[in-house]
Amino acid sequence: MTRIYFDNAATTALDKEVLDAMIPYMTTYFGNPSSIYSYGRESRLAIENARKTVAKILNANPGEIFFTSGGTESDNMAIASAIHDLGCRHIITSPIEHHAVLHAVEHFDHDDVVTSSFVKILPDGHIDLEDLEIQLASHSERCLVSLMHANNEIGNLLDIYAAGEICKKYNAIFHSDTVQTVGHYKIDLRSKPVHFATGAGHKFHGPKGVGILYVNDNIKIKPMIHGGGQERNMRAGTENVYGIVGFAKALEVADANMEKEAEVIQSLKSYMIEQLQQHIKGVQFNGDYKGRSLYTVLNVSFPKTEKSEMILFNLDMQGICVSGGSACSSGADVGSHVIRALNNNPNLVPVRFSFCKYNTKEEVDKVVGLLKEMI
Amino acid sequence: MTRIYFDNAATTALDKEVLDAMIPYMTTYFGNPSSIYSYGRESRLAIENARKTVAKILNANPGEIFFTSGGTESDNMAIASAIHDLGCRHIITSPIEHHAVLHAVEHFDHDDVVTSSFVKILPDGHIDLEDLEIQLASHSERCLVSLMHANNEIGNLLDIYAAGEICKKYNAIFHSDTVQTVGHYKIDLRSKPVHFATGAGHKFHGPKGVGILYVNDNIKIKPMIHGGGQERNMRAGTENVYGIVGFAKALEVADANMEKEAEVIQSLKSYMIEQLQQHIKGVQFNGDYKGRSLYTVLNVSFPKTEKSEMILFNLDMQGICVSGGSACSSGADVGSHVIRALNNNPNLVPVRFSFCKYNTKEEVDKVVGLLKEMI
Repeated sequence: MTRIYFDNAATTALDKEVLDAMIPYMTTYFGNPSSIYSYGRESRLAIENARKTVAKILNANPGEIFFTSGGTESDNMAIASAIHDLGCRHIITSPIEHHAVLHAVEHFDHDDVVTSSFVKILPDGHIDLEDLEIQLASHSERCLVSLMHANNEIGNLLDIYAAGEICKKYNAIFHSDTVQTVGHYKIDLRSKPVHFATGAGHKFHGPKGVGILYVNDNIKIKPMIHGGGQERNMRAGTENVYGIVGFAKALEVADANMEKEAEVIQSLKSYMIEQLQQHIKGVQFNGDYKGRSLYTVLNVSFPKTEKSEMILFNLDMQGICVSGGSACSSGADVGSHVIRALNNNPNLVPVRFSFCKYNTKEEVDKVVGLLKEMI
Repeated sequence: MTRIYFDNAATTALDKEVLDAMIPYMTTYFGNPSSIYSYGRESRLAIENARKTVAKILNANPGEIFFTSGGTESDNMAIASAIHDLGCRHIITSPIEHHAVLHAVEHFDHDDVVTSSFVKILPDGHIDLEDLEIQLASHSERCLVSLMHANNEIGNLLDIYAAGEICKKYNAIFHSDTVQTVGHYKIDLRSKPVHFATGAGHKFHGPKGVGILYVNDNIKIKPMIHGGGQERNMRAGTENVYGIVGFAKALEVADANMEKEAEVIQSLKSYMIEQLQQHIKGVQFNGDYKGRSLYTVLNVSFPKTEKSEMILFNLDMQGICVSGGSACSSGADVGSHVIRALNNNPNLVPVRFSFCKYNTKEEVDKVVGLLKEMI
């Protein structure tokens, strides 16, 4: 059975050329980057070159890029630092953030270290920036604002510049989980009023187990994980050298072909919208799907029937990989907190389709055909 | 120039068969382990099989093994949990622990969350267990004891059973950094009175960027990194699937050949001791080098001369990779805190030689020959 993989917001296949770039660091160049002899220096050089590549593509200084074990660690580190090192005592976030943000915020709120509140969400899933400003104005203590650049379930894109300007006005620290946009959009960090941003290699055909945290030069923070002097004393632990090399290579590949691929993938998304509207009665789309939205993500609500409740299972039986929401909460099987926050209609079954450069129109046709039979 | 790599305590070359086991998870089986469809289930199964393999070899329950990004994260997590979740208010550790422990302890002590003290070190580098008991008896609050199983610089092995029994008597939590012994010794966690133990794949010919934390079933802790439900809600973030697969495979390979390889490597160490004593006047050895000591590590002090001060540099020029101490602190270039704690004689130059199964007697001859010329 040929599989169709429409869950690229969960993870992506590693690009062949990324793997090729990683292999030498899994064979020949195995030295510890902290070692001062030749084997070590080769690994160190690979890491510093990777950092320069990433910084250049994101228009940041190499000194602002820190390699971590992934997007979740990066989000946690940003939030912990804002509290421990930057004096933030209130966190404003949204109910539709990734659990890497929501559960980290809950942890600190639960421990009475900080208080937290949710900014309002508009009916189309966008952040109510007026409410953000009202909330910031009402807090005298320093605030951390944590709002994702693109929502991983419904695809909505935040106007990160507008949000950042509001944060600036109130001297708030601004963290944006950019895991779904790094490697998918041209991101110019120098022009964005953001203090922390994050990336995860496996979201753009790079390796799992490696991420970045961007920390704006104007703020000074301390490590979350303590030990050796790696990452300029900011993240201890022997570096995942081949992961870091793979992250940079994947970002390079993504950046080189970004516009062309974005166009192709956007056309797949638009085609699927058309086809679903044409063939499936009562279908709805979540979020600002035709407006400010990821070209990679399409979140669809199907009318609830006996058959549609089994939709993920039945699609899987046919080799179709899609999800009900974030992969990180799939195991929990409690439904999507994002869809719940937007629309608590129990008579709809939400399904996220997310695309990449390897998907085709023929795959969309096949999936829509199967959905037609199933619903 | 043929390189000779005598720094296997810093990191090791990835075994070919480990890489072969990892590759399918970097190509075919790329699914997110949290996804419920076939691609995801394959990855999930690989992780759970890896966990079972690791648990079996270390004689633990699979539920006691958590995968992390490496030994440093594992050490940090153990220490943070002991404080936040298990009520420890004083930490007893030693001045010769790895920085992953020392700097984590300093962090919490500095924040006035806990107090900490060092247990005495005997002249041969072993932990003074009598002093440990005296210190535990003098503290009424619950203590965390963090003592490494084997010292990464001088090789001394702790009697982990004896230390654990003392901890038990005083209801202390016992964490042992076992990074240098996992994959090198038969470790039976079920029979050891230890609450936390750690491992890092790259120390036994496995991949970098992956480690384990063993958490004894009798204690209940919370995550350090918050987010998705990965690792049974104990370590959020998309799993480094091929890293985890590689960790388990490397441990399996190491375990299968352990006795034979230990014998061969021990004979290299003994041979090097002999040869150095025979050929280099005034040579000394640090730690209990002929007694309870890692077969992989030999820490030598050379008399200080104009030439010997440049020893690491000159060896590197000849393609010989050795270190002055822990790789994690090499960059800092402040000398070894371990050697300083044992013997503050400024007229000696310490060098760590550390061996693996790929080293040979001929390499020892060549290195001793070069050292003879250099000193």
